[in-house]
Amino acid sequence: MNFEEGKLIAPKGYRAVGLSCGIKKDAIKDIALICSDRPASAAGVFTTNIVQAAPVHLNREHLVNGTARAILVNSGNANACTGERGMANARHEASLIADGLSIAADDVLVNSTGVIGVQLPMDTVESGISSVLSGLGDVDWDAAAEAIMTTDTVPKKATATLDVGGKTITVAGMAKGSGMIAPNMATMLCFVVTDAGLAPEDLKSSLSSASNRSFNCVTVDGDMSTNDTILVMANDGAETGSLSGSDLEQFSQALEAVCVSLAKQVARDGEGATKLITIRVAGAPSEADGRTVGLSVANSSLVKTAVFGRDPNWGRILCAMGYAGVPFDPEEATVSMAGFPIYADGSGLEFDHAAAVKALGAEDIAIDIDLRVGSATSVIYTCDLTYDYVRINAEYTT
Amino acid sequence: MNFEEGKLIAPKGYRAVGLSCGIKKDAIKDIALICSDRPASAAGVFTTNIVQAAPVHLNREHLVNGTARAILVNSGNANACTGERGMANARHEASLIADGLSIAADDVLVNSTGVIGVQLPMDTVESGISSVLSGLGDVDWDAAAEAIMTTDTVPKKATATLDVGGKTITVAGMAKGSGMIAPNMATMLCFVVTDAGLAPEDLKSSLSSASNRSFNCVTVDGDMSTNDTILVMANDGAETGSLSGSDLEQFSQALEAVCVSLAKQVARDGEGATKLITIRVAGAPSEADGRTVGLSVANSSLVKTAVFGRDPNWGRILCAMGYAGVPFDPEEATVSMAGFPIYADGSGLEFDHAAAVKALGAEDIAIDIDLRVGSATSVIYTCDLTYDYVRINAEYTT
Repeated sequence: MNFEEGKLIAPKGYRAVGLSCGIKKDAIKDIALICSDRPASAAGVFTTNIVQAAPVHLNREHLVNGTARAILVNSGNANACTGERGMANARHEASLIADGLSIAADDVLVNSTGVIGVQLPMDTVESGISSVLSGLGDVDWDAAAEAIMTTDTVPKKATATLDVGGKTITVAGMAKGSGMIAPNMATMLCFVVTDAGLAPEDLKSSLSSASNRSFNCVTVDGDMSTNDTILVMANDGAETGSLSGSDLEQFSQALEAVCVSLAKQVARDGEGATKLITIRVAGAPSEADGRTVGLSVANSSLVKTAVFGRDPNWGRILCAMGYAGVPFDPEEATVSMAGFPIYADGSGLEFDHAAAVKALGAEDIAIDIDLRVGSATSVIYTCDLTYDYVRINAEYTT
Repeated sequence: MNFEEGKLIAPKGYRAVGLSCGIKKDAIKDIALICSDRPASAAGVFTTNIVQAAPVHLNREHLVNGTARAILVNSGNANACTGERGMANARHEASLIADGLSIAADDVLVNSTGVIGVQLPMDTVESGISSVLSGLGDVDWDAAAEAIMTTDTVPKKATATLDVGGKTITVAGMAKGSGMIAPNMATMLCFVVTDAGLAPEDLKSSLSSASNRSFNCVTVDGDMSTNDTILVMANDGAETGSLSGSDLEQFSQALEAVCVSLAKQVARDGEGATKLITIRVAGAPSEADGRTVGLSVANSSLVKTAVFGRDPNWGRILCAMGYAGVPFDPEEATVSMAGFPIYADGSGLEFDHAAAVKALGAEDIAIDIDLRVGSATSVIYTCDLTYDYVRINAEYTT
């Protein structure tokens, strides 16, 4: 498998475009369209927040048949908490794209991210939809990846290329995350396209597994948005036919690799973040339990500020492990930070403190936990908690 | 019921003293002893963290018989993650106090707060124990309340006085909280003494109910410590005999009022806090569900930074309600902030934005939520998330 982090290499049979239609000020790109030139299997994973934006409701509905052809995205407005009018607007967007591409409306997936509680400026959106439809001649994936950004400081892209059953397939994705766009909360959107062929049910289970090991393992501040969405389309542009057996397994690994890379890029670009923190929990009773422990550590403001302050503070890590709700014996568990074993046998270990503080100056910080209960391992990605996080989220006033 | 927030008026038959023994530098008070001159019923509520400090283990053991006579507390060292030696040290402390007061060792409760993973300096502690024992002639409750502080900026005290069955009883308490003492996590300690008479089982259930509505409803950063402890002694110094019926009910209300007051004082003095946030969740299916929703909002970094930034941001509140895991209908729920109704019928309401921002400049901020599901109400206390929180927890290096 060839892997390109930060690059998006288009799979066969897709086009994408991104441009500015005026939802955001200053001609910042704010609308993107990704479409498949042929029928495609499609699957999605959505926020489990009780409060869900209109496009999330619509996409669930449109994915019942397991197919899609187009993904429309706007930034600058989340179309969340917008009631029936918001639903009608999302439906209208889908029908405009469907008309423009001569496809079925339920093959269009619609996504919004930005301010919540404000109706979409439909005149602006409609002209934007005209523009992306007519812009499809000038394919520009990088522009599409930019147009979905909100407070992100960099676009997030990743591509895996691999040979499956004698054919070369590509799995390419883009994501946005980083943090909330005031007065909103962090919204994570991720779109993956592949020219492999997959039965809808296989694509669905492959995406479910990949998202459990990627986006469900990433946290910036523990807040789960109303709009979080991961979508994948598989159009068999590479003419593999429906993958199965070890071919399907290979595809799943590639999809997971793309999703993990995008999730890490989201964590690294977390609001105000200066460091990517990778928390590996080994010896867990199950992968889900390992994820619970890792997320408890990742969401601890005390751990996140300690990493920002370059403090090899095992007490805070152990404390967050202890209230995660997963049984383990504190006398058995071990903790390392930035490669330094700092806790074992129920108490702190001797270590070269100055060297550890120096190691914590790096941009990538590893926290390695072994619960010594079972054999499952989970990996969680997060970032440090800094003055800039407070600034970004406190100084903006709606 | 007479209520004094910030004051501790001693109930009959107790003495207390606080002084400096040298665990902390600069002659800062670091050891306190509270003792009852007569046998007392006693009960405790402890951290549910898997990782528990030695004194927590010891106190559980010593409370099995439902009685106690003395509460020893040191600050500056948590005696947590200190293994068998830590347990032996805690036992030794209890036996020294027992010898000094001629009481049974299992009538001594021992408490520590401060740095974790470091053994208690027992020479220093032993001389401190001698000093508090000999200092009991000069009773000084305020000094005791100071000696239990760590990063607290003010001592926390409260007293309720009421007539029960023709006798005047006093319920008085002190607490420390605020935040962690590096390299440790926030530890909350609370000690309440009363001269009412109570059967141990009644005292236990009364404390359990009071703590559910007070300390279990307060959060600074969501981190639950290894040492969190609430202890209560009831020595019948007022000669009420064992309270029952409506007398017991009255006592329970007074105990709850003292605990709620102390919990609010802890939240208001949260690390870096500029505001006390009181989150009232009405219309909940149960009190526990209301607490879950309220704590989800209280622990949201986005909500806490919004309050710091005086931002009437209902989107962040609704979002945190939505991922709490308690079912409700977002179309039915309502939210007010600082007295301004800001969300109802599934979307934001019109309100005087400038006036709301001004109201959010106050030191006490109310967030009122109505889930419109059931009839239970819970009240949660927290504080805002500020630059100083990051500074306090990032700039200290162990």
